[in-house]
Amino acid sequence: MTTTSIRITGVTVTPVAFTDPPLLNSVGVHEPFALRAIIEIATDAGLTGLGETYADEKHLAALRAAAAAIEGVDVYRTEEIYRRVQALHPAETLVSSGLVGQTAATDRVFSPFEVACLDIQGKAAGRPVADLLGGAVRDAVPFSAYLFYKWAEHPGADADDWGEALDPDGIVAQARRLVDGYGFTALKLKGGVFPPVQEIEAVRALRDAFPDHPLRLDPNAAWTPYTSVKVARQLDGVLEYLEDPTPGIDGMAEVARKAPMPLATNMCVVAFGHVPPAIRANAVQVILSDHHYWGGLRRSQLLAGICETFGLGLSMHSNSHLGVSLAAMVHLAAAVPNLTYACDTHWPWKSQDVVAGTPFTFRGGSLAVPSGAGLGVELDRDQLARLHEQYLACGLRNRDDTGYMSRVVPGYQRKQPRW
Amino acid sequence: MTTTSIRITGVTVTPVAFTDPPLLNSVGVHEPFALRAIIEIATDAGLTGLGETYADEKHLAALRAAAAAIEGVDVYRTEEIYRRVQALHPAETLVSSGLVGQTAATDRVFSPFEVACLDIQGKAAGRPVADLLGGAVRDAVPFSAYLFYKWAEHPGADADDWGEALDPDGIVAQARRLVDGYGFTALKLKGGVFPPVQEIEAVRALRDAFPDHPLRLDPNAAWTPYTSVKVARQLDGVLEYLEDPTPGIDGMAEVARKAPMPLATNMCVVAFGHVPPAIRANAVQVILSDHHYWGGLRRSQLLAGICETFGLGLSMHSNSHLGVSLAAMVHLAAAVPNLTYACDTHWPWKSQDVVAGTPFTFRGGSLAVPSGAGLGVELDRDQLARLHEQYLACGLRNRDDTGYMSRVVPGYQRKQPRW
Ligand SMILES: [Mg+2]
Ligand SMILES: [Mg+2]
Repeated sequence: MTTTSIRITGVTVTPVAFTDPPLLNSVGVHEPFALRAIIEIATDAGLTGLGETYADEKHLAALRAAAAAIEGVDVYRTEEIYRRVQALHPAETLVSSGLVGQTAATDRVFSPFEVACLDIQGKAAGRPVADLLGGAVRDAVPFSAYLFYKWAEHPGADADDWGEALDPDGIVAQARRLVDGYGFTALKLKGGVFPPVQEIEAVRALRDAFPDHPLRLDPNAAWTPYTSVKVARQLDGVLEYLEDPTPGIDGMAEVARKAPMPLATNMCVVAFGHVPPAIRANAVQVILSDHHYWGGLRRSQLLAGICETFGLGLSMHSNSHLGVSLAAMVHLAAAVPNLTYACDTHWPWKSQDVVAGTPFTFRGGSLAVPSGAGLGVELDRDQLARLHEQYLACGLRNRDDTGYMSRVVPGYQRKQPRW
Repeated sequence: MTTTSIRITGVTVTPVAFTDPPLLNSVGVHEPFALRAIIEIATDAGLTGLGETYADEKHLAALRAAAAAIEGVDVYRTEEIYRRVQALHPAETLVSSGLVGQTAATDRVFSPFEVACLDIQGKAAGRPVADLLGGAVRDAVPFSAYLFYKWAEHPGADADDWGEALDPDGIVAQARRLVDGYGFTALKLKGGVFPPVQEIEAVRALRDAFPDHPLRLDPNAAWTPYTSVKVARQLDGVLEYLEDPTPGIDGMAEVARKAPMPLATNMCVVAFGHVPPAIRANAVQVILSDHHYWGGLRRSQLLAGICETFGLGLSMHSNSHLGVSLAAMVHLAAAVPNLTYACDTHWPWKSQDVVAGTPFTFRGGSLAVPSGAGLGVELDRDQLARLHEQYLACGLRNRDDTGYMSRVVPGYQRKQPRW
């Protein structure tokens, strides 16, 4: 039998900005626009593939360097692409990803190219990307409702239609809207915003309003180990897991020894190099995977296999993202046998996108795997152009929740841990 | 884009026997025939795929049960196939694989079906199987010369053309023939046959005759930890690794603390459940992967990723095998970035096969990845029929090196450790 080749002839990297509500977290508040980069790979076979990733300036530069380095490579040879990306980065370079910790530069840069290559492989084979990962083991992927403390509006702007959520009532109302609208069966509160006693109160209010929904709280390392243990004990029997209460593997290990529930992380274990020390210290019991910094879909499968082998739970982390990322997340999550918890997504918080049509409809909080070949999403060129214009016009070039907050609230300072 | 399906319409399991020389090991001697099972998967797309595995009676029964259970599944949905195989085996069932330790029943049964499905996927996409695993990162896969103490002939039979090898001179002569004929650049001696002092002597003779070839010694757990440490110290600077000197993770850990070279294993870490305790104890520094019991090519990639993550070396184990297995081994090894040592193979020891033509030619001890789509090998139907007839006629149904040895050498007993 003869074989064919599908070589990369060009890569386009397009930074885009989309409107984002003023969502609060432990280091500040979301700016009016979230930034993403859309990757398009063109091939000599005429097939094209999509990827989506971060768009901070350093990352954009790294993406463009990688784009040049991978021209001519066959889209099936993703290990060769990985090597070429790796060759651009000093060994073991770590890059901070905002609230996420020190991620591996190579994995972070490689990811959207791998996704785009799999998109093309899927189109070439006439199969969804999930099939290139061993095939879906579930018809639909469960997601959690991602609850945020938020202001009613960005300073100086009109109120968004979500309104304010700064107390338990606001959070419960927000949860109600998300559960009614999407059918989510698990709830996650982004904490680290108010003193722990107030956030405990909000979690208890959620428990009262949604007695059967698994609950999670994620203060993004806002607490000392001492505070973390205190909160954990007060929420015994209420949380399915407590996410990143305190910074670092050592701190998490200290909390894990006393907390009655599993600890989850997307901060202290965010690269393969963190896995051995975390396992040695039994620092975390659940890892939130994220293909954007774990090196794409297949390396996220490796992480999943490590979790299964070492008896760790697995969930999925989300940053603000668009439809290309969501498609990749769904294909991956559908194919991972040991997805032990509903995935996170910021999806409901955005109203603009670059993908054509409406490929995603939540049913019972879950998304079906897109049915087409590849990722199953296509670009809306007009929308892409519009969001790129928005990127150019908005002036934002790097995510800076803390800087934005401190312009609105003079004297605000990032502090980790804060309580 | 539309998608197509490729469903399994039938599976054929054919046990075969091929002639095998009287190779000695720590539990006896190879019988006159080695047994294997050839798996053929047929699909509604007209494409067929090949797999190869063990052929002991219990395994044949398990293969046939699995074959029935996976009919109708799409060949891309290997995770679904895994689930169906798993459903046939009580959780965590372990199965002894001769000299190999307690392997996972599901992984052992699933493996040839996964390989056959990847063969079909590759044919459908017009790509070699290596491309379905991320693509080859090396043009050729290095193998080691697999040296055996051996008798001149099977009792009652004519001498084979290898002749006797029962002392250092015989081993060096054998190595010379393998190096001259295949270009191997690493040498592995199967030990555990004679008292350690004699095997040390053979290794030293190899070192003298081949000053630049990395050397390995594999006594298959024939030694106590005390003996193992003594031998290890005497071979300091001579071996690139010492393979399975003593039984069990605890014993290996004890030896590892004092041995000057890395310890390798295909006996105490042969299932994913063995990995965490082995890593905790730092029992081994190199794992010999083997897709036949690690659950196929993708789960072997998971093992490779675990080795990379935890800083373990990676090599590849071999049982007596035919060309379908060799093809799968080469595709896998070509795609694994962290293959840190040349792979093992029994290939030179056999003279019969089921694959058509001569798809494998060693150059410098290495094999190029077969260039066709899928595995790149096809069955020779006449040969398959002949080796199946041989299976039916030979009377062997399970590998029994010890029973054979004790019929030839009255009073011989399996003993582990022996020295
Ligand atoms: Mg988090
Ligand atoms: Mg061995």
